[in-house]
Amino acid sequence: MIDYQTDPSRYRHWRIEPDGDIAYLIMDVNQAGGLGDYELKLNSYDLGVDIELNDAVQRLRFEHPEVRCVVMKSGKDNVFCAGANIRMLGKSTYQQKVNFCKFTNETRLAIEDASENSKQIYVCAINGNAAGGGYELALAADHIMLVDDRRSAVALPETPLLAVLPGTGGLTRVTDKRKVRRDRADVFCSTEEGVRGSKAVDWRLVDEVVPNSKWKNTVTARAHEIAARSDRPKDAKGIQLTPLARTIEGDRVSYSHVDVELERERGLATLTVRGPSDNAPASVAAAHALGAKFWPLTVARELEDAILHLRTNEQTIGVVLLRTDGNAQGVLAHDDFLAKANGDWLMREIRHYLKRVLKRVDVTPKSFIALIEPGSCFAGTLAELAFAADRSLMLIGAREGDNRKPAAITLGQTNFGFYPMGNGLTRLQTRFLGAPEQVDTLKTKIGEPIEGEEAAELGLVTMAYEDFDWNDELRVMLEERLSFSPDAMTGMEANLRFAGPETMETKIFGRLTAWQNWIFQRPNAIGEQGALKLYGSGVSPTFNKERV
Amino acid sequence: MIDYQTDPSRYRHWRIEPDGDIAYLIMDVNQAGGLGDYELKLNSYDLGVDIELNDAVQRLRFEHPEVRCVVMKSGKDNVFCAGANIRMLGKSTYQQKVNFCKFTNETRLAIEDASENSKQIYVCAINGNAAGGGYELALAADHIMLVDDRRSAVALPETPLLAVLPGTGGLTRVTDKRKVRRDRADVFCSTEEGVRGSKAVDWRLVDEVVPNSKWKNTVTARAHEIAARSDRPKDAKGIQLTPLARTIEGDRVSYSHVDVELERERGLATLTVRGPSDNAPASVAAAHALGAKFWPLTVARELEDAILHLRTNEQTIGVVLLRTDGNAQGVLAHDDFLAKANGDWLMREIRHYLKRVLKRVDVTPKSFIALIEPGSCFAGTLAELAFAADRSLMLIGAREGDNRKPAAITLGQTNFGFYPMGNGLTRLQTRFLGAPEQVDTLKTKIGEPIEGEEAAELGLVTMAYEDFDWNDELRVMLEERLSFSPDAMTGMEANLRFAGPETMETKIFGRLTAWQNWIFQRPNAIGEQGALKLYGSGVSPTFNKERV
Repeated sequence: MIDYQTDPSRYRHWRIEPDGDIAYLIMDVNQAGGLGDYELKLNSYDLGVDIELNDAVQRLRFEHPEVRCVVMKSGKDNVFCAGANIRMLGKSTYQQKVNFCKFTNETRLAIEDASENSKQIYVCAINGNAAGGGYELALAADHIMLVDDRRSAVALPETPLLAVLPGTGGLTRVTDKRKVRRDRADVFCSTEEGVRGSKAVDWRLVDEVVPNSKWKNTVTARAHEIAARSDRPKDAKGIQLTPLARTIEGDRVSYSHVDVELERERGLATLTVRGPSDNAPASVAAAHALGAKFWPLTVARELEDAILHLRTNEQTIGVVLLRTDGNAQGVLAHDDFLAKANGDWLMREIRHYLKRVLKRVDVTPKSFIALIEPGSCFAGTLAELAFAADRSLMLIGAREGDNRKPAAITLGQTNFGFYPMGNGLTRLQTRFLGAPEQVDTLKTKIGEPIEGEEAAELGLVTMAYEDFDWNDELRVMLEERLSFSPDAMTGMEANLRFAGPETMETKIFGRLTAWQNWIFQRPNAIGEQGALKLYGSGVSPTFNKERV
Repeated sequence: MIDYQTDPSRYRHWRIEPDGDIAYLIMDVNQAGGLGDYELKLNSYDLGVDIELNDAVQRLRFEHPEVRCVVMKSGKDNVFCAGANIRMLGKSTYQQKVNFCKFTNETRLAIEDASENSKQIYVCAINGNAAGGGYELALAADHIMLVDDRRSAVALPETPLLAVLPGTGGLTRVTDKRKVRRDRADVFCSTEEGVRGSKAVDWRLVDEVVPNSKWKNTVTARAHEIAARSDRPKDAKGIQLTPLARTIEGDRVSYSHVDVELERERGLATLTVRGPSDNAPASVAAAHALGAKFWPLTVARELEDAILHLRTNEQTIGVVLLRTDGNAQGVLAHDDFLAKANGDWLMREIRHYLKRVLKRVDVTPKSFIALIEPGSCFAGTLAELAFAADRSLMLIGAREGDNRKPAAITLGQTNFGFYPMGNGLTRLQTRFLGAPEQVDTLKTKIGEPIEGEEAAELGLVTMAYEDFDWNDELRVMLEERLSFSPDAMTGMEANLRFAGPETMETKIFGRLTAWQNWIFQRPNAIGEQGALKLYGSGVSPTFNKERV
């Protein structure tokens, strides 16, 4: 089992070294610390290295409010990072490669989200070669510095060396973030040795090159300049991201507010999120005191872990039923609290974290079906789960013998801007792309419980059924969905979930990832004579020359 | 060999029936007229059917200026079109499937381009079931009418039936053109039988449903209403798209102004476009009199055929060298003529046709390298070839013993708006995404021959070499490029060529096509137990249930 939970005391590959309003995030990969049977030479990485990076980025935001600039650098001499480990890629199954790239992409986007939205701004100080995924990591930073020592270069040698793409954002960030001229990008991405010195600046590949003699001082000076642009508080105290309360046993994964039940034979999972048991805190200070026990943060962490677990460790699960359980008013009270305290750094972090977790749902290759039944609390933040789902089913009225109130969706202000998708729109805006005025109508319903028939009429749910139809309709839908080709479902969902504008982020997950997934199946890369298989063997690959 | 040239006298599957300012474009597929060993039942189609459709769309624009509305309908009772022929897909090689889908996509976009830019507006009158590619064809129309006979439906059953995607624009047009709500799109795309009647209107899948009794009259009435919106001239006379002057023999394809030389062993082709031999016509009437012999139109047709030929019939060609030969002033004079006469319907057609041909270059899976040497005429419209190329090499100064003027690029007004790419930007805007002010600087150079060093400085070419370096640099570059994995090149180019905004069109070629190409390789679709292989056999497919 791959576990996405870790903490700095267990890191094998990274160090966080805070220094006032700056922190150094130092990559120093333990060669023998890979998840599989390969050596992580030259700061090359595997999923385990990236899990630590993801954890570090997260903790810097929550545990270090005082850090305004993060400087990523290498703890090794003469090499920054050699990218994804090639033996690891060569030995991985197809599913592992795809899952690894997706998580790595999400981590890079989390770095960009920290710079942009938490004002914890990333600088990458490239002290040695940054090749492949190493340069792709640097591309996530706001400011890229390269030492000018006549050796150190940035490079994307995946295509010439391995017959795969710089697929964890590389090609897209080169053209759309760094805005490198397309023909130079073509030259750069097909040159093994990469580009160094002032040419790297001229070509927009890095922001500055610095002579070796001035390197350390310039990096520090730049970090302080950039820190000065941040609006993070000076004297705040961080909160601890304490270990998750998680139990994994047999066909069940349980957390304090999230449960996953698995029916592996059917390929079905049921994921239940529970609303808050406590009232919203009385003050911002009280929320800080709750720390990781503050319900919105708890739910974000548990839901994230559950989604990553399902993706990685339960690959034959094709459909995930999304349920909620609890009190809608409690959810909305917490939402209101988050919104009102939005000037507070911690509340801001939590809001953006929830946004990122919901985005993980959007790019998870499982069919999500939300079930909205009596006792559920699809309100505000949790209603986003229903809008993130591929379909939603809602019960009209009550069930016989159940005297709880009929199921309802309750919209909150969080549904109108807190959690934009990768395309830059809210889930409701994306949903009503063909009827944008509907979003305005729905705004007038904030706070009102909307029951089954009205929800269907307003377009908030896919279908609404009465109790006597519910079981049959659900059973037939699930049987059908589970009988379809998993690949066709993934391809269909990857297209239908992102209507409207495309952004660098959706391009990475849509265009670039799709082409990389394609190449990861092509014999020219992964066949016995393919470049990825033969790398390092001294034997040249043999390519089928047909162009497709 | 697949030949993209045809004309109405040779059509087996379509009829054009002009009726004043309306034309009926009638699909009546000859069951026995497929390109391979399968029967084209129920108006299902293969590449041959689509080649005729492409030709018909083209001829309607050029040969029928009086037609303001085109009504696509079926010539068969009770079926509109059953989509791409499944036996054909099952028997096709991977390369054939991908090439077929690309061309089909281009034809659909040409229909949309006719509605938008030629004001020859397409209506689709669905008189019978429109399934899969049949409905995807309808989606290209501006207005979709569906007969309400309690039987006829629109459907995208690819995913449930065949484990592939509605990949020729279907998924993207449903969400981004028709703006169908994503959960409804999910239901629609996983329902074999599709949607009919008023629900099809409610779900935005069609624009109107019409009872059987009123069908014919309503279709005619709607066509006349739509024709009234067009700005096409009332009394103009069309020109004839006469057969191309083409010779294909051995390693050479020759046209009047385009040549292709093939070095199949190396995987290399050289495509040369010749500038005009005559002056620009003295008047619009004179240009009309030239008809298909008017140089810009000749070049568009010959270049298009050469590109399609290379794609389809020369798949092991990986690199195409782009050359031009002739007088830059002649090219610019023709460009100016086109620009000045832009109010004329025919000049408008030619301009948009050149735009579409250049877009075909953008999505062609070959590496394009422009060679800009003395004697060349990379000016205006032909300079777009250099900007469409992945790289361009320019000679500085003259060659020993060659007393022609040094190579130059000459910009014209056509480079600043005539030929937008799929992303909505010009090639120069896309090229200078990181330095948009450069486009303004370049505008001041219109008409000036820009020689090698200056062109490199202005960012117009990738590299400029003097004569004594030229041969070595070119040889090394080609050896390298031709040694790379063809798949990695295709994936890289598909990402690097489209910086900046994404549109429905780039989403179709980027996101949707990439996922479809992926699925076309997955055993769940094309394996011995896959859905595409087993369709019609009565045996259910066996899927690997892992979700990727």
